[in-house]
Amino acid sequence: MTRPALILLSGGLDSATCLAIADDAGFNPLHTLAFDYGQRHCHELTAAAKLAQLHNAHHRLVHIDLRAFGGSALTADIDVPKDRSPHDMAHGIPITYVPARNTVFLSFALALAEVTRSRDIFIGVNALDYSGYPDCRPEFIAAFQSLANLATQMATEDPEHPVLIHAPLLHLTKAEIIRRGTALGVDYALTHSCYDPTPVGLACGHCDSCALRRKGFADAHIPDPTVYA
Amino acid sequence: MTRPALILLSGGLDSATCLAIADDAGFNPLHTLAFDYGQRHCHELTAAAKLAQLHNAHHRLVHIDLRAFGGSALTADIDVPKDRSPHDMAHGIPITYVPARNTVFLSFALALAEVTRSRDIFIGVNALDYSGYPDCRPEFIAAFQSLANLATQMATEDPEHPVLIHAPLLHLTKAEIIRRGTALGVDYALTHSCYDPTPVGLACGHCDSCALRRKGFADAHIPDPTVYA
Repeated sequence: MTRPALILLSGGLDSATCLAIADDAGFNPLHTLAFDYGQRHCHELTAAAKLAQLHNAHHRLVHIDLRAFGGSALTADIDVPKDRSPHDMAHGIPITYVPARNTVFLSFALALAEVTRSRDIFIGVNALDYSGYPDCRPEFIAAFQSLANLATQMATEDPEHPVLIHAPLLHLTKAEIIRRGTALGVDYALTHSCYDPTPVGLACGHCDSCALRRKGFADAHIPDPTVYA
Repeated sequence: MTRPALILLSGGLDSATCLAIADDAGFNPLHTLAFDYGQRHCHELTAAAKLAQLHNAHHRLVHIDLRAFGGSALTADIDVPKDRSPHDMAHGIPITYVPARNTVFLSFALALAEVTRSRDIFIGVNALDYSGYPDCRPEFIAAFQSLANLATQMATEDPEHPVLIHAPLLHLTKAEIIRRGTALGVDYALTHSCYDPTPVGLACGHCDSCALRRKGFADAHIPDPTVYA
């Protein structure tokens, strides 16, 4: 099959699984896209580059300055919340929400998809673990797919072959994602989830992202290869 | 009225008119957003900053590297077409189309709108003069508005006050846009339209954008203040 796909690859557990799913489905060539959007650290970006290399994907890094807009603990000078209860994590929009992030990321993905003629775009969003983020919901993904088919030259010129936004993790729990990825051979030691790692890249073990990751491995009964500080 | 608005301001004739329309409608404060996306020149960006200053708008410039993706005469090393016939300009998607550009621009606008709590976003797209661009059509604008209301914290938390994408020039001819802007006091000498200006910023007079602009002033029977090379 020579049907290209574009995968948004942050370097985290979810997007690594997404890349493995696209590769396993036979898409070829694989184009991966990561963003330097003023995160507090670069460990995720290093992880993304390594994962892309393992899958022989054509990897691109886009620099964008969402930081100029402020508004999130992931990009502004606000403390990352630690040791929150499962109840607190599950309710409300967390302070780590980056304004319109998935809209911005999917827009760049669409631009690169147009250039590489990739009608299949993969994004590792998850509606269960990230219920507080408006742009991780199924209706958001469906709306972006509608937009993509109106916005691009490739879809306009060939409406029989629409752009598809694949979100294969949308309805999976973290444990199910880890089981799926493990079955596909994903080495999760290469992925990075922590919002607030040590300078050398060890996971803090206490932010929401670390908490979800730890619980996911525990629930999946799969050893967690993450090195926590 | 203290109802903020966000205006995408390229520095061209259309977005300058859009800014004047938002200002005239009483939106306040005004937030303007321009993009350095690897254009061949910076004259548009200078024009945008001047126009924002005249309207007391809070102006922001975002750097994005669409150029890394290639695919357009506006960002890649492809010749800008000159002296095309009106028929050629009106049909097909031109080589100056930047992949998913308006999707990317509106996504950043949405991020900044969320941070500034602006539920009103203005974009100067035009369906008549730019019929070849898929992302200048009314259905694209409508689809983005639907997306915006699913994608953001402000719309999710307060669905009674949805995000509105205003495209006041959508169905106007270039001559109508110029008449409207002139009535609102827009000084079109401060705007820049040319795709391929001289190094000091004089308009070439022959690219599609210059041709549409010249014809617009002629059709409106308003003197064209542009200095052509």
